[in-house]
Amino acid sequence: MSDTPYQQLEKRFKRLSALAEAEAVLHWDLAAVMPRGGAQARGEQLAELKAVRHAMLTAPETGELLAAADAVDGLDAWQRANLREMRRRWIKATALSEDLVIALSKAESACETVWRTARPAGDFALIRPYLEELLNRVREAAEAKAAKQGLGLYDALLDDYEPDGRSADIDREFAELEAFLPGFLAEVLDRQAAAGAPPMPEGPFPRATQEALGIRLMEALGFDFDHGRLDVSLHPFCGGTPDDVRITTRYDEDDFTSSLMGVLHETGHALYERGLPKAWRGQPVGDALGMSMHEGQSLLIEMQVCRSEKFLNYAAPLMRKMFDGRGPAWEPGNLYRVYTQVKPDFIRVDADEVTYPAHVILRYRLEKAMVEGRMQVADLPGAWNEGMQKLLGLTPPSDREGCLQDLHWYDGAWGYFPTYTLGAMTAAQLFDAARRADPAIEDGIGKGQFKPLTDWLGVHVHGKGSLTSARKLLIEATGRPLDPKVFIRHLKARYLP
Amino acid sequence: MSDTPYQQLEKRFKRLSALAEAEAVLHWDLAAVMPRGGAQARGEQLAELKAVRHAMLTAPETGELLAAADAVDGLDAWQRANLREMRRRWIKATALSEDLVIALSKAESACETVWRTARPAGDFALIRPYLEELLNRVREAAEAKAAKQGLGLYDALLDDYEPDGRSADIDREFAELEAFLPGFLAEVLDRQAAAGAPPMPEGPFPRATQEALGIRLMEALGFDFDHGRLDVSLHPFCGGTPDDVRITTRYDEDDFTSSLMGVLHETGHALYERGLPKAWRGQPVGDALGMSMHEGQSLLIEMQVCRSEKFLNYAAPLMRKMFDGRGPAWEPGNLYRVYTQVKPDFIRVDADEVTYPAHVILRYRLEKAMVEGRMQVADLPGAWNEGMQKLLGLTPPSDREGCLQDLHWYDGAWGYFPTYTLGAMTAAQLFDAARRADPAIEDGIGKGQFKPLTDWLGVHVHGKGSLTSARKLLIEATGRPLDPKVFIRHLKARYLP
Repeated sequence: MSDTPYQQLEKRFKRLSALAEAEAVLHWDLAAVMPRGGAQARGEQLAELKAVRHAMLTAPETGELLAAADAVDGLDAWQRANLREMRRRWIKATALSEDLVIALSKAESACETVWRTARPAGDFALIRPYLEELLNRVREAAEAKAAKQGLGLYDALLDDYEPDGRSADIDREFAELEAFLPGFLAEVLDRQAAAGAPPMPEGPFPRATQEALGIRLMEALGFDFDHGRLDVSLHPFCGGTPDDVRITTRYDEDDFTSSLMGVLHETGHALYERGLPKAWRGQPVGDALGMSMHEGQSLLIEMQVCRSEKFLNYAAPLMRKMFDGRGPAWEPGNLYRVYTQVKPDFIRVDADEVTYPAHVILRYRLEKAMVEGRMQVADLPGAWNEGMQKLLGLTPPSDREGCLQDLHWYDGAWGYFPTYTLGAMTAAQLFDAARRADPAIEDGIGKGQFKPLTDWLGVHVHGKGSLTSARKLLIEATGRPLDPKVFIRHLKARYLP
Repeated sequence: MSDTPYQQLEKRFKRLSALAEAEAVLHWDLAAVMPRGGAQARGEQLAELKAVRHAMLTAPETGELLAAADAVDGLDAWQRANLREMRRRWIKATALSEDLVIALSKAESACETVWRTARPAGDFALIRPYLEELLNRVREAAEAKAAKQGLGLYDALLDDYEPDGRSADIDREFAELEAFLPGFLAEVLDRQAAAGAPPMPEGPFPRATQEALGIRLMEALGFDFDHGRLDVSLHPFCGGTPDDVRITTRYDEDDFTSSLMGVLHETGHALYERGLPKAWRGQPVGDALGMSMHEGQSLLIEMQVCRSEKFLNYAAPLMRKMFDGRGPAWEPGNLYRVYTQVKPDFIRVDADEVTYPAHVILRYRLEKAMVEGRMQVADLPGAWNEGMQKLLGLTPPSDREGCLQDLHWYDGAWGYFPTYTLGAMTAAQLFDAARRADPAIEDGIGKGQFKPLTDWLGVHVHGKGSLTSARKLLIEATGRPLDPKVFIRHLKARYLP
């Protein structure tokens, strides 16, 4: 008997997945081990793989098979969900005309290239025409996607990073955070100023020891080195494939604290990928959900677990022993203070847990206004500085520390920013539900036993793949929709105990 | 104006090359860094890439474009050569029916799997039916390829590894070697026995120091670390792509000599890949020639250059200094003796320069007889042992050290073995011509200056890509056809000076 349309689709998407995995490994190689002379050839390899995947996904047969599979009864719920995710990818891949794809890609390359000069120079005027051109193309793409998916302009972009994410929800949630944060921040800063800065452990911290400590804690968290690696790259990331997860970090021999927490953050991403159901490999429904749930996993491990007092009670003696540390800086209580210091700053990637949402809210508001045509690119620097003043009480000394700092917009990634803070709220809400569901979870953290936590995450998040949306999954896992109050409660408990 | 058929072919083969490069990087990753749990997914990624390439190469348009390009005048010599290489690949890809490709692949997998048990157990009876089945499929494939290319059965297989290689030539050349080697070997063994074994440098030799020494000598030879890497794998190889050459080795902390020479051997391969013309990248005519010329490059660097007295005069003080070595074992003359010791042994991969051809001649004779139906698989162990006795005066204690030792046949690689010794003869003949052409080449070796040599190789070999066949290239570079006498003269000069 020949394959049904649905079965043919499973085979086709399995092939697409193998090609996407090949691309992921080549990306890791590029970032972690490739000699710089390999860049041009690698670019051609990746472009060709992308072209092959695009052709396979947008071939007429894919659309015909989707229509035929839809018309047949008899698919179970899992297959229906898989078909839904297949269709989502097909719609996104076919939404843009070839001309627009090329125009967008050219505008992105041109703008990114100029940004590499404009940012260090703090020269917004230099990049402005490129960003205007790119925004025009992004808006054209948003219109095409919006029409095909029945969405608003901004939501059509957001949906690429956060499937089924909607800005109406985000507006409400961010407003609640924004009402809380400035006053809270002022109180926290007062409290921390009164206590004085905690002493920092003194280095040097040899790279090999940092790596050994990272591996030790990754293993404690359940990272399986038969199915993954830890390496070095300029920009840390979690890549590879679910059966071969590659995380990276970078080491500073004067300060181990930042790299270590970065490793634990990426370990959160890695545990999600590894926890996806083995039997669903290669099918769209077996993939991880969008960026907010992925960031939710990394921030759950980093912010909820590893910056907690309990975790540092467990980890501080290990750190002290491995680095042969002496003095009060190595006390668990002091390392907890080190890991929860709050300091408003211009730069998002250096921000702490309390000020990070302000960076995100600002970017979200600005990008939404620009996509919706309510704000011009020319007004970006002024609007940025005004927002920073309002949210964090700071005015960047130049656009370098302001609206030029992040690559995202200049590389065409519009609609991405809100997922960082959605992830922080998701992490807080999942961890809150988990520890209430099983007391062994919180007890275990102080003893370096994380299996109760990862078991709970496996059942309620990792093992669900993309069966449902991130927002619905959160309701199933925690009993209620995403609620900023849980995140706010976490911040209060940690920073104003 | 739209592309001519020839121009369309260039674009198509450029795409095929990008995909082949992606595969090469994934192979390197698998061998050098992949955690073992990634094996299944990697197998699927590689199989999918191979399937995509096969489909693109065998698509009806490829054949139509080749016919159309052939029918047009106005191609220059380079384009004609490129078209010839394109056609060669297309003929090979389309020679076998899909059924036969599948049957062959299954027979290879089954036989290789059983070999992994049969070899350590020395159990030829266990593997015999699998090898018989595989040989039947290999012969079917040989018939199909032979018919399509107008070749004899064995030559149809040989041609996959050594384009335009013909067994009539090899028969003659190997007969000449075989007439010389046994008597010569006996004399060398007498001479070396009389001199006594050279003292070995005493370790341990830390892995990091071995690596640093390898890198130092690779750099001296002209390996560009902006375009390549040195890593570790179980079976050393040269992989990657021309702009990003990845060589590997393995380290033994009790004996650095073998790993170091392996590194220099792979460096010879790497210099060939790197020396291919940059402007010809992605086109079939821009690729390296077959296995004999590639092995010719690695053996030229390893055997002709790096095991020479001159090279060791240059390198021995460096080795001694880096390992902090003391005593007479570190004298250049002694290291030269270490690196030119001859010892008949059962195992090919451990063989020295003098006995290696005997291993190859034996395998070549046996595989040719089996492919041509003049010998049965059942008679292999007996014929093997008889041949070993005749060529090297040894009888393997079991088939583990005999006809089960190499993966090649059990993995479907029939027609590959002769290229090792063709490579050794090619290396001797190229080096002989090079040093006669430019006295600075031999002078430079003693001073660690290899640019005169690599310049000569660049002009006469590396820079020629696949413009012509290996045998014709050798005539152009050295003024005469492959001549075993040159290799024999080299052996006499080195081992019976």
